[in-house]
Amino acid sequence: MSERFTRIECVDVRFPTSSTADGSDAMNADPDYSAAYAVLRTDADGPDGHGFVFTIGRGNDVQLAAIGALEHHLVGRPVDETLADLGATWRRLVHDSQLRWLGPEKGVMHMAIGAVVNALWDLRARRAGLPLWQLLAGLSPAEIVDLVDFRYLTDALTPQQALDILEAAQPGRPHRAAELLAGGYPAYTTTPGWLGYSDDKMVRLARQAVADGYSQIKLKVGGDLAEDVRRLGVARAAVGPDVRIAIDANQRWDVDAAIEWLSALAPYDPYWIEEPTSPDDILGHRAIRLAAGTPVASGEHVHNRVMFKQFLQAAAIDFVQIDATRVAGVNENIAILLLAAKFGVPVCPHAGGVGLCEVVRHLSMFDYVAVSGTMTDRVIEYVDHLHEHFTDPVEITRGRYAAPTTPGASTELRRETLDRFRFPDGPEWAAVRR
Amino acid sequence: MSERFTRIECVDVRFPTSSTADGSDAMNADPDYSAAYAVLRTDADGPDGHGFVFTIGRGNDVQLAAIGALEHHLVGRPVDETLADLGATWRRLVHDSQLRWLGPEKGVMHMAIGAVVNALWDLRARRAGLPLWQLLAGLSPAEIVDLVDFRYLTDALTPQQALDILEAAQPGRPHRAAELLAGGYPAYTTTPGWLGYSDDKMVRLARQAVADGYSQIKLKVGGDLAEDVRRLGVARAAVGPDVRIAIDANQRWDVDAAIEWLSALAPYDPYWIEEPTSPDDILGHRAIRLAAGTPVASGEHVHNRVMFKQFLQAAAIDFVQIDATRVAGVNENIAILLLAAKFGVPVCPHAGGVGLCEVVRHLSMFDYVAVSGTMTDRVIEYVDHLHEHFTDPVEITRGRYAAPTTPGASTELRRETLDRFRFPDGPEWAAVRR
Repeated sequence: MSERFTRIECVDVRFPTSSTADGSDAMNADPDYSAAYAVLRTDADGPDGHGFVFTIGRGNDVQLAAIGALEHHLVGRPVDETLADLGATWRRLVHDSQLRWLGPEKGVMHMAIGAVVNALWDLRARRAGLPLWQLLAGLSPAEIVDLVDFRYLTDALTPQQALDILEAAQPGRPHRAAELLAGGYPAYTTTPGWLGYSDDKMVRLARQAVADGYSQIKLKVGGDLAEDVRRLGVARAAVGPDVRIAIDANQRWDVDAAIEWLSALAPYDPYWIEEPTSPDDILGHRAIRLAAGTPVASGEHVHNRVMFKQFLQAAAIDFVQIDATRVAGVNENIAILLLAAKFGVPVCPHAGGVGLCEVVRHLSMFDYVAVSGTMTDRVIEYVDHLHEHFTDPVEITRGRYAAPTTPGASTELRRETLDRFRFPDGPEWAAVRR
Repeated sequence: MSERFTRIECVDVRFPTSSTADGSDAMNADPDYSAAYAVLRTDADGPDGHGFVFTIGRGNDVQLAAIGALEHHLVGRPVDETLADLGATWRRLVHDSQLRWLGPEKGVMHMAIGAVVNALWDLRARRAGLPLWQLLAGLSPAEIVDLVDFRYLTDALTPQQALDILEAAQPGRPHRAAELLAGGYPAYTTTPGWLGYSDDKMVRLARQAVADGYSQIKLKVGGDLAEDVRRLGVARAAVGPDVRIAIDANQRWDVDAAIEWLSALAPYDPYWIEEPTSPDDILGHRAIRLAAGTPVASGEHVHNRVMFKQFLQAAAIDFVQIDATRVAGVNENIAILLLAAKFGVPVCPHAGGVGLCEVVRHLSMFDYVAVSGTMTDRVIEYVDHLHEHFTDPVEITRGRYAAPTTPGASTELRRETLDRFRFPDGPEWAAVRR
């Protein structure tokens, strides 16, 4: 008897982060960092698969309803076959025509697929006894190409071109994997930069970041222009001219406002401007980039590979910020890594939130070993929130992410956390009484 | 005591349309046309407000969960104040930062807002004793501008430019309203064109459409190239050279495939190609339009005003196909009508589905009276499905939509329909046992 999937267990996990200013920015004043958390159960004795969507509070239940709506695609299916061909599994989930109508390929339904896909990868990696990045980096170029749905991509990237990129990177794989295990992958930190922090707190945390070995920090902007100019000046004075200061407007501006704002901030040499306007506005990002001269970064809210394709085709961004739970999981992020490699644009993942650092490091490390083959101008965001809730939390040493070695995708929350922060009935929420 | 909203009643309504080939196209083989249906209840004696999202089956429950997540924005609020400033109400719903994370402004959460916004407009129109189009066309240009959120639009359309468009149209309003009441608004029909129909059925329905007074029909394409060439040839022979035949690929192609396909179909003079590729692919639509020469139409899956802005800025489409329930309701569709007017591109709404014809005619008629002031090259899609379930169904005479005169937005389903087609427990579904 082959092993089968039996159910998707869904848990609504929320952390009451709005009680501090952690995570506050120009668009999100009071987030309660949350996870719409899914566990794939099987009738086997072995491990389960874990995945989640990061949300910021209200609506986490809607996200869980969407994950639940995918259950019929897995329950009763053989585990081995499903995991052996995750390209086909991805297509079955994404091309369910009735569910696709709810996007298509965007928003709640697409992120739900991402949680399930990531949980499938977690399960496959656990069963293989490998951390996700090593599992992926051990696949052949042809196997990797099979994971990608090239629909809507072929005017920018064909399967053959993807294969060429992967084959070119193949000879150096063992060397680069060893490098990662020895020295990790560079990080930057957003910890000093939340909009709700006082100057003193920002300066203290920025200096601490530099002392801890980071060569890049990030500040939130977009609340008030004069105040941003002042804060960026204070930060620049605190860290000196050699530390990169990225700034993040969290979609706050219209195109003309972004250009005006950036020209006022330019004297403080921002390394990039992140999400200057709507994440849907490809042409707007391009116009801002051309007019303001500050390099532009975006991606944490870019909803699928078709949008990333256009950002790259239009030369609208200088940095691709993939996110572990915004698109349809590992497979779609591989498509985006390949697109970025094709266009020669560095990938600097968005992280933070709940578990995004834990998961996305696997993708950057896979990219280094098997796709782009370089760490030049690449950094993974790091925020020191909520890692203690994960069974395989990130480790940062001298501003670098250590390569994970535990089998799986690092997606698993601790059982105590699930019990304690379950919404609305866990003890942490019963106490809040909101 | 002022009147208050008391709750949002949510009903899962599905029609077992997959048992016929009605609604079948290259991407959607077996839709069960459905509505995630919302009724806004108040403690007043007067009418309720009705709204819905059209879906094609599975996931209709997810869509309802999203509508339910908006309840706290209305319950307990004063009805008069809320309805008097629907611009502010729209912003409150769309800019709920926690819920916004689930899009932003796209997919399940954004469509849920659309259902609630449309229900609020339905309620306001009922209380005013006017059909929605006349209510909207009776607002001053400044009042209409206040309904629109110009965030992310100002590089293409400023509030002042919108005001100028509306003021230019003001003098002719009474004359055009009288014209609509006398002669209606032109329609085209998709009834002959579903992909699952035999040649005989297609030819019979196409000839019937012409006999009924339609000067434009639409055919689904994208299944098989040779078959499409044959079918389009049969259709062209059946209706002659003077009837416009639009074709609709329902997102089936990559850019290069679309260009190849359209060059093979060009001899049969398609009036437009609809959704040739991903609805997110602005640059792809532009490339197809430039290379193939066939005019391009899109919009039924274009998820918000920022995307429409770019389709227009990039000259990527020749026809703007608004949809009543894809974006965040009446307010966002007004923004899109104003953008289309600014760029001089005709609006030819998508309709069909469940109730889309009923609702969207109000928007086209408002556009004619108060925005574009013209019907040239404008047609509203018509499909003869499911109208009997609405309390204020469309009336078509000689290929034209009659102007509705019943107060409201024509969003209300009959009580018997709600009972009979409620999923999964209504008698129609109990019988199907799926």
